[in-house]
Amino acid sequence: MDSPYLKLLINFSMAHSLEKMPSGESISFVICQGVPMSLLANTPNPPYYAVIFTSTRTEGDHGYGEMANRMVELAEQQPGYLGVESAREDVGITVSYWADLESIKSWKANSEHLEAQKAGRKSWYESFKVRISKVERDYGI
Amino acid sequence: MDSPYLKLLINFSMAHSLEKMPSGESISFVICQGVPMSLLANTPNPPYYAVIFTSTRTEGDHGYGEMANRMVELAEQQPGYLGVESAREDVGITVSYWADLESIKSWKANSEHLEAQKAGRKSWYESFKVRISKVERDYGI
Repeated sequence: MDSPYLKLLINFSMAHSLEKMPSGESISFVICQGVPMSLLANTPNPPYYAVIFTSTRTEGDHGYGEMANRMVELAEQQPGYLGVESAREDVGITVSYWADLESIKSWKANSEHLEAQKAGRKSWYESFKVRISKVERDYGI
Repeated sequence: MDSPYLKLLINFSMAHSLEKMPSGESISFVICQGVPMSLLANTPNPPYYAVIFTSTRTEGDHGYGEMANRMVELAEQQPGYLGVESAREDVGITVSYWADLESIKSWKANSEHLEAQKAGRKSWYESFKVRISKVERDYGI
């Protein structure tokens, strides 16, 4: 149960099953054992865009965790969304991938996202930087 | 002493003072209290380049921690290097910033870095992705 793949699969299953379950029906999870889902974003061949968001947090949560989860959920529904990768230690880094600049612009202007951006500037972030970049080449294993 | 700023300043001072100190001389640190150094990379106005390196690790260290520190130290000495940001949870993300593609190419071909890349493929990473991207716009607080 310590495998990050399994954790992700369970999180994924919960997020995508619970809200679609009709009231009273029993909940079952299908875990695809032996088929590890990659934690890295499965992006298409370049070119595509990366939004590199780096930040340092203020002290305390102040609703941050809930908002961060909601923003990922919301971003996934946007046209042109290709994936996201995120980690936080002293610095938080979230890289989201997008098909084109138009998709990034629409996501930035999303009304719920605008509220989160406002709260981010006011309460959650001590500092942040957003970098809009065009991925020209990629490789990996 | 828990402030990440202070930790960074001490690490910075140690790294940059110890090797330059003539033998027998006493060591003193100057900590710039009240002037927090940002943990985010202090990049110039765009355009510049970002290398987005994301990975998942294999189990155990196998010399990884030492190599990772050495690679940051080495990258900082490369021409065209502009800064780095790094965090790891389930996924590790390291974004390094560079003046141009030529600098990235030289860094990739650095002999000590080539050794690390080979060991990375063989032992340290379960999966990784390198994305070379051109930063077109940035903003922040």
